[in-house]
Amino acid sequence: MPKESKIPNPTIKRLAVYSRPLEILLESKLPVISSEKLAGLCGVNPAQVRKDLAYFGEFGIRGVGYDVRHLLNAIKGILATDREWALCLVGIGHLGSSLVQSENFKKRGYIVKAAFDSDARKVGKKLACGLTIQSASCISQTVRKLGIEIGLITTPPHEAQRAAHLLQEGGIGAILNFTTIQIRARKKCFVENADLSVKFENLVYHLEQLDKI
Amino acid sequence: MPKESKIPNPTIKRLAVYSRPLEILLESKLPVISSEKLAGLCGVNPAQVRKDLAYFGEFGIRGVGYDVRHLLNAIKGILATDREWALCLVGIGHLGSSLVQSENFKKRGYIVKAAFDSDARKVGKKLACGLTIQSASCISQTVRKLGIEIGLITTPPHEAQRAAHLLQEGGIGAILNFTTIQIRARKKCFVENADLSVKFENLVYHLEQLDKI
Repeated sequence: MPKESKIPNPTIKRLAVYSRPLEILLESKLPVISSEKLAGLCGVNPAQVRKDLAYFGEFGIRGVGYDVRHLLNAIKGILATDREWALCLVGIGHLGSSLVQSENFKKRGYIVKAAFDSDARKVGKKLACGLTIQSASCISQTVRKLGIEIGLITTPPHEAQRAAHLLQEGGIGAILNFTTIQIRARKKCFVENADLSVKFENLVYHLEQLDKI
Repeated sequence: MPKESKIPNPTIKRLAVYSRPLEILLESKLPVISSEKLAGLCGVNPAQVRKDLAYFGEFGIRGVGYDVRHLLNAIKGILATDREWALCLVGIGHLGSSLVQSENFKKRGYIVKAAFDSDARKVGKKLACGLTIQSASCISQTVRKLGIEIGLITTPPHEAQRAAHLLQEGGIGAILNFTTIQIRARKKCFVENADLSVKFENLVYHLEQLDKI
């Protein structure tokens, strides 16, 4: 295995994309897939697939293809998705509620251990998943006590930085920020932004461009 | 204005990010901001901000900064977010429901005009926003009739490709795909993937790397 810190971020993101059709192929009991077919299923070109996978050693057999089970397990090992991760959510509005209830995340090993909100009317309410909404003032303590590793922020924008601060006080390792605000974090905490409205703006820009053709 | 089709996609994505603090600054009646401060609020470096904005002409005054209102309006014009866009959703589960109800999207001019599901038990139900869930078999006809421009797919993965097909039959211009499956689309339709579990896998990979330091 090479020095993983040198692997470019786009490669890491594509590995997750490659794993999706591999999961389906494994369920369908297909043992082998060519880089051309895998690339086709993922909407990238075959050379890219080969280049990305080459970072991690030799998975393919020339003229035959990749062993589906072997490749999927290797990707899961690289991405560290072969284990469970403890999550919490801050901000239980529409989006927060839907994420707490996501069967897709649960199936992938992302287990929501706690849910927080700063609205006193929500605190104490029981969610369908069995968790009780806790006050945002308990964030640091609960994160530390339960060993929560990832925090999702789905608060209104003006509450996001405070939520990030409390999560870090509890020793959280990573934050997925769904708000429209960029949050500041310490070096030891990895932050990924998932502001969906940015996706929309990219989309409508391209729509305008298509109209002009 | 230069030929916009030559502007790199990462620049387009960052423009949306730049617009977020500008909106807040405008509300706070701050007239001017330096590229250093804007960069700090967005978590990028000042040279990047200046380079990105240079694609679109001269917004800055050397030694003073950018006129907040002028820059925000210009970005909105470039991204085509200065108008309303008609949306529909296919798949009204947890995530779909939360997106239909998003005040943030509505505020930004993304108006949900129709909601579809293939589950007969959901069809005919009225959503909090006033829309009634329609059968997936009505997708093409409704998209065409209402002039819907953007389709969001929040179905189970195995229904995603069919949903994409029906949306395109209705003449949709862009699709935002939240499922774990990559969908195929015609050249005239722009597809953006927003599979949230891919974000998670990127996050846990980096968490593992942090642990190793």
